Amino acid sequence: MKLLEDKIRSCGRALNDDVLLVDMFLNHQVDCELMKAIGDEFYRIFKDEGITKIATVEASGIAPSAMAALAFKVPMVILKKQASVLMDGKMLQTEVYSFTKKKSYQLTLKKEFITENDRVLLIDDFMANGEAAMGAAKLIEMTGATIAGIGIVISKNFQPGMEKIKAAGYNVASLAQVAEMGEGYIKFVGE
Amino acid sequence: MKLLEDKIRSCGRALNDDVLLVDMFLNHQVDCELMKAIGDEFYRIFKDEGITKIATVEASGIAPSAMAALAFKVPMVILKKQASVLMDGKMLQTEVYSFTKKKSYQLTLKKEFITENDRVLLIDDFMANGEAAMGAAKLIEMTGATIAGIGIVISKNFQPGMEKIKAAGYNVASLAQVAEMGEGYIKFVGE
Repeated sequence: MKLLEDKIRSCGRALNDDVLLVDMFLNHQVDCELMKAIGDEFYRIFKDEGITKIATVEASGIAPSAMAALAFKVPMVILKKQASVLMDGKMLQTEVYSFTKKKSYQLTLKKEFITENDRVLLIDDFMANGEAAMGAAKLIEMTGATIAGIGIVISKNFQPGMEKIKAAGYNVASLAQVAEMGEGYIKFVGE
Repeated sequence: MKLLEDKIRSCGRALNDDVLLVDMFLNHQVDCELMKAIGDEFYRIFKDEGITKIATVEASGIAPSAMAALAFKVPMVILKKQASVLMDGKMLQTEVYSFTKKKSYQLTLKKEFITENDRVLLIDDFMANGEAAMGAAKLIEMTGATIAGIGIVISKNFQPGMEKIKAAGYNVASLAQVAEMGEGYIKFVGE
């Protein structure tokens, strides 16, 4: 997605060969018109998959997912990193390790919001090691639902996540695929 | 906002005189078309306030705020409850106590994303005791920016938050104001 790659090039910053800072438009300050374009692009890619729900992991995935949910006209379900004391009803949980935050958390889903008849498009902002996406997919599949697609805003293809997800048989699309990067430069797949 | 009040009545549930469960359409499963209508309503209310940024507290405020940002055509800034290890640059922080989660957290903002020339519309999903909104307003004002408005999706007017915010001089609008509630019933202001 050229618009997104251009934005990453102009407003993102590779701090080193591992960390891509995009907090100017994606995960701290958020360019919501870009998020709308991203949601529309996910719709274009997955519109024939019979999607009934969009799922995402809080918090950075919410803005692009909300725009995708608007395009698909289906509900969004936010998988929670912290179970609220207000949650009631049957909860499903799975443990996920975050390389970024260097700790594990319990990803939580209230059972009634995704059921066995759902075809879910899972959306996340980043794909690096694939822990969050694999954990989220596992949690959703506990309900009996089908993961009909996985949409990633930015993938760091030199890290194992993309390969892991494909090897597991998921239909994955990443809108900006970083082939390699280092301090001050970013190279996308196909360049 | 009648559409929202109707949704609360049909899909929300007062568990007791304190807890209003709206996880079916607002904070776990999210009705994004309703969020769009909420964003548009905030635009209608605050469009003459010269808003340059929308700010919200992660995570439940993000979906309605993203839709408001789309309507205003300005960036959204997500105040973080947990500083990422990836954050760099100058950070501002303030401590906020959450009655819901029964613990304090550090609300964090990267300085460069809100500056003294900004007129900020602060949006949150709930107003109860007002701790999150007061903390967020204080954090934003540390930058020298002006809080030009506070938009709340649902306020529990029988709790102290709304009065506290008004007493502090803020221009606040709540789209669904609960006057009182108890197990199985909800009464809005004006009914």
